[in-house]
Amino acid sequence: MAHIKVPEGVPGIRSLVMFRPETGKHLYELAQVLLRNESPLTAAERELIATHVSNRNECKFCASSHAAAARELFGAQKELVDEVIDDVSTASLTPKLKALLVIAGKVQQSGSAVTPEDVAEARKHGAVDRDIHDTVLIAATFSMFNRYVDGLATLTPTDPKTYEEMGKRMTTLGYVIPNS
Amino acid sequence: MAHIKVPEGVPGIRSLVMFRPETGKHLYELAQVLLRNESPLTAAERELIATHVSNRNECKFCASSHAAAARELFGAQKELVDEVIDDVSTASLTPKLKALLVIAGKVQQSGSAVTPEDVAEARKHGAVDRDIHDTVLIAATFSMFNRYVDGLATLTPTDPKTYEEMGKRMTTLGYVIPNS
Repeated sequence: MAHIKVPEGVPGIRSLVMFRPETGKHLYELAQVLLRNESPLTAAERELIATHVSNRNECKFCASSHAAAARELFGAQKELVDEVIDDVSTASLTPKLKALLVIAGKVQQSGSAVTPEDVAEARKHGAVDRDIHDTVLIAATFSMFNRYVDGLATLTPTDPKTYEEMGKRMTTLGYVIPNS
Repeated sequence: MAHIKVPEGVPGIRSLVMFRPETGKHLYELAQVLLRNESPLTAAERELIATHVSNRNECKFCASSHAAAARELFGAQKELVDEVIDDVSTASLTPKLKALLVIAGKVQQSGSAVTPEDVAEARKHGAVDRDIHDTVLIAATFSMFNRYVDGLATLTPTDPKTYEEMGKRMTTLGYVIPNS
């Protein structure tokens, strides 16, 4: 049971946005700009970063829902998502995306864990400022979402089909306030 | 030097918001709603939570600037801020605020670290759902800001006077986009 009185049966972040729409509005708008609007990273790559950080933070709701969105967006390459969940170092990623996921993993630990060498490695494989910026901000943002969702003990569905449906909605509708 | 090309001489989050105003807008609006708009917690108490989390994350820029804002807002009681930075368990806080800071410290580690007993302790001393919600979301949000600011190695001023001026601006103007 959640630590506060949120609408019954509504999972994860959605229940919190319904509890407090004034902050929820900005959280959803941030997610939409960061994960869907213009970036040198594809939406699939950005969902993969969100999945990786959520998985490292052991936030089952965020990891499962963003993994489902990433699988939808990667299409034929969807096995990449499970490879990243298993082990980034052995996943069949481009060297650029692998270097960015290493940076995201550092941010998940602590901002100051990111070294100039980590950034140089990403640049060596073609990353530009916006790739690095968006990677760090996505990783930081999911360090927030994961803590918000689990810190209030929100409902975490266990049926994989529920997440598949969420993933479809996240890739078609994007991040829109529920019931608005 | 920052990991990406941000405006020179501009410290911390401000340089990142200038680099990427599209996300910056939502980050500042979130901070304004969360730290200044209606809440059962005073603005001083909310800045204290932000300071505590930033201090635990060793984010010098965020810890120093929000500590300065908290000192401004606490006025005659400003020594509370340094007591919290030193050790929450011995700080001369109300039992309610102490219990909420314990929850914030748990969120800084991990969302799932917050226990029903932590929440029950806060409720015993008068905390209601919104106190608990706002505490968790402030702690989660600063887990993001701290990682964003340090993950990109932004400029961290060392002169305490710079932070005093920031603290004054944060308490009078609130969280407004720089140069807008």
